[in-house]
Amino acid sequence: MSAGIDPEASLHVQAAISAKREGRTLTEESVRRLVHDFVDGRIADHQMSAWLATVACTGMDLSETAALALAYVDTGKRLQLGNPARPVVDKHSTGGVGDKATLIVVPVVAACGVPVVKLSGRGLGYAGGTVDKLESVPGLRLALDADELRSVAAQAGMVIAGQSDDLAPGDAVTYSLRDVTATVESIPLIAASIISKKLAVGADRVVLDVKYGDGALIADYDAAAELARTMVGLGGRLGLRCEAMLTDMTQPMGRAVGNALEIKEALAVLGGEHVRGVSETCALLSRVMLQSALPELSDEAADERVAEAISSGAALEQFLRWAELQGADRACLEDPGLLPAARDVTEVRADRDGWIHEVSARRIGGAGLRVGAGRISADAPLDHGAGILVNHRIGDHVTAGTVLAEIHHNGGDVRPAVDEVTQAFVIRDQQCTPPLAVRDRIRSNDVADAP
Amino acid sequence: MSAGIDPEASLHVQAAISAKREGRTLTEESVRRLVHDFVDGRIADHQMSAWLATVACTGMDLSETAALALAYVDTGKRLQLGNPARPVVDKHSTGGVGDKATLIVVPVVAACGVPVVKLSGRGLGYAGGTVDKLESVPGLRLALDADELRSVAAQAGMVIAGQSDDLAPGDAVTYSLRDVTATVESIPLIAASIISKKLAVGADRVVLDVKYGDGALIADYDAAAELARTMVGLGGRLGLRCEAMLTDMTQPMGRAVGNALEIKEALAVLGGEHVRGVSETCALLSRVMLQSALPELSDEAADERVAEAISSGAALEQFLRWAELQGADRACLEDPGLLPAARDVTEVRADRDGWIHEVSARRIGGAGLRVGAGRISADAPLDHGAGILVNHRIGDHVTAGTVLAEIHHNGGDVRPAVDEVTQAFVIRDQQCTPPLAVRDRIRSNDVADAP
Repeated sequence: MSAGIDPEASLHVQAAISAKREGRTLTEESVRRLVHDFVDGRIADHQMSAWLATVACTGMDLSETAALALAYVDTGKRLQLGNPARPVVDKHSTGGVGDKATLIVVPVVAACGVPVVKLSGRGLGYAGGTVDKLESVPGLRLALDADELRSVAAQAGMVIAGQSDDLAPGDAVTYSLRDVTATVESIPLIAASIISKKLAVGADRVVLDVKYGDGALIADYDAAAELARTMVGLGGRLGLRCEAMLTDMTQPMGRAVGNALEIKEALAVLGGEHVRGVSETCALLSRVMLQSALPELSDEAADERVAEAISSGAALEQFLRWAELQGADRACLEDPGLLPAARDVTEVRADRDGWIHEVSARRIGGAGLRVGAGRISADAPLDHGAGILVNHRIGDHVTAGTVLAEIHHNGGDVRPAVDEVTQAFVIRDQQCTPPLAVRDRIRSNDVADAP
Repeated sequence: MSAGIDPEASLHVQAAISAKREGRTLTEESVRRLVHDFVDGRIADHQMSAWLATVACTGMDLSETAALALAYVDTGKRLQLGNPARPVVDKHSTGGVGDKATLIVVPVVAACGVPVVKLSGRGLGYAGGTVDKLESVPGLRLALDADELRSVAAQAGMVIAGQSDDLAPGDAVTYSLRDVTATVESIPLIAASIISKKLAVGADRVVLDVKYGDGALIADYDAAAELARTMVGLGGRLGLRCEAMLTDMTQPMGRAVGNALEIKEALAVLGGEHVRGVSETCALLSRVMLQSALPELSDEAADERVAEAISSGAALEQFLRWAELQGADRACLEDPGLLPAARDVTEVRADRDGWIHEVSARRIGGAGLRVGAGRISADAPLDHGAGILVNHRIGDHVTAGTVLAEIHHNGGDVRPAVDEVTQAFVIRDQQCTPPLAVRDRIRSNDVADAP
């Protein structure tokens, strides 16, 4: 973005940097100008990143964050997939280790008659991306243009696809700077980025799954809760009804970590299997998504519809029908044994009796990275069959020799992954209470829509 | 500096940005690595500027600031112009409007037998640079290489020249980013930049002239005092004996603002004329510079030597001899009427009786910019003859019609300059006490050399 620096734009970004450093609030016009000047190349990358770094230090209020989200939206196209009579629900997770909730809740809610649209990113670091996971399904196409998105959404009642370059491109170019300047974790920058995508795709309702714990983007619970409140408040300010769930990422979500392994686990849950750490959280997320489209629905009625969607086979069939529409080989989903699988399995066993106090999601994710289940840089290849199966969760009692986890890999030196998995588990003599899967739910009423 | 980004260096700068944002202190090794990675192109401009912007928000302690100064020095050559038996004194001003002190104190101190070396920058904005001022002297060469610096210093006992590209180039490339990212005013970044140049040139003693007031880089007195203490402490930590004077820049220094006008005023002071606002400050700076090389000298003895250097004509002769060695046309300095002069003079008169309460240095400097005496961008040309002569100072009584200032210009629309000068003066009915020219002196004993 460095061509053709403009003197006026250069003075403006410098004034915006000084203003933020000195604790002043930028006007909507100033924020809008900054984003457009950056996207159009009138200011340099190093000027924009100085502004981002300053904001990461000093924060932004809700008016500035809203201005940033809107400016991102205005740099690209804006879809409108739903309509007031038939609202479209979107779901967003801030990302975590083994997070396959999208693969479950989207078809469940769609099977209940509520259209769902979900544009997902690729994974970077130890938290995998939904697009990467789905690419382990032979034939499934995830790069859809706006017309295809509309067509699949209309035919299947749901769509899951990769992020479109046309939607909020200003966010994408800004993110590429944040990614290399340690400014990813800023709460207002995260909130503006996420909400801009939701506005651009034209969702009517958004359910935000905000993770906390060592495997989450934001580990600290209070900071994650602040992010949740910021996004719900921001949505409210911009006419987008948001709710947020604060969900546990101190340990991985469920048993499977790795691309095809997670697809298999999602298919099992859709097929009616109860998987600890997945089934409960997905049931709650599904309830909240249903209620966001159908606010009159009681908790009990929503839960009943969700349970019925799974037990009747409707949710699984919804998933299969959607995947086929996007080109998937249906046989591989009906017989997951045909999906990619690793050649070798190395077990990690408990070295003592006791109760499990920790299963570090960050370390399990790190072990996944080491066997090729995730990528360290944006252009690194993935091993779709590799990953970790975590057999035990916080609060379980184990004896020496119990298999704690299985590492699925395709050759190479597996010891670094074994070390990571071994260190992920902390076993003690005392009993331990498992953490809550969902710790809080933040509705728009809970958040004052004001700076 | 954007070629060949290195993954390890990229991770390191990101860790350094996060560390500073989270309030941690960087190690010397980490700061050194950052500077070398930047200079060698292993990290991108946008990464370095994110770090600079973060530091501008959070500050650095003395250990980090020292590491930064040393890292800058290590990117270039290091001169050694003095030796323990015959220490070389350097003088640095943070810059101000009409600041011609270098042109006076350097020859005065050299005439007293103490070698002085002064590498100066060009001016940008309303504070002029010593190099720009001296370039109005026909023939005078200011771009000297290391050998010439040594040779002139040995022959003339003093040298004034432009900054050498070989000395602390890491500071120069960092400054070019700071200049466009609103990170110039950060106290630790200023201190590391200034002190690195002093270390690189091999000065033994440094006298720092730190300005405060609306025409200074740092307007606020307390912040300027903090900068002074930081630099004196930093020098102490790095084995460089520094003292700082805190001098007034609420009004311009003396009468002349503009390149040849200031040369003429400096020659007048060296010739024995008393110029209000210049003579007192330069006498004090000269005393401090003499004492920094000759610590046993009493205030009275130092003042006597300074007065004698001027009244005997030795200081003026010192200036002429030095200037000739660097190629100046001596005739122009002996008859300043031969120096560049503007064609037109426009007077600005008082519109009422009263006492002068303000002569805004910033506005007088701004008026100078408007008639071409300063440059707005680094490559803009200068009008060496243009500038402002300020006839009256804070505390003076004037009557309606008194000429407050003369604008020297070469055609064009002079009204914007007239407006600026008019607004610079505030005249009221009440009497007003003039501000102190020098408000404080900070010796190394006054500053704890500790983080």
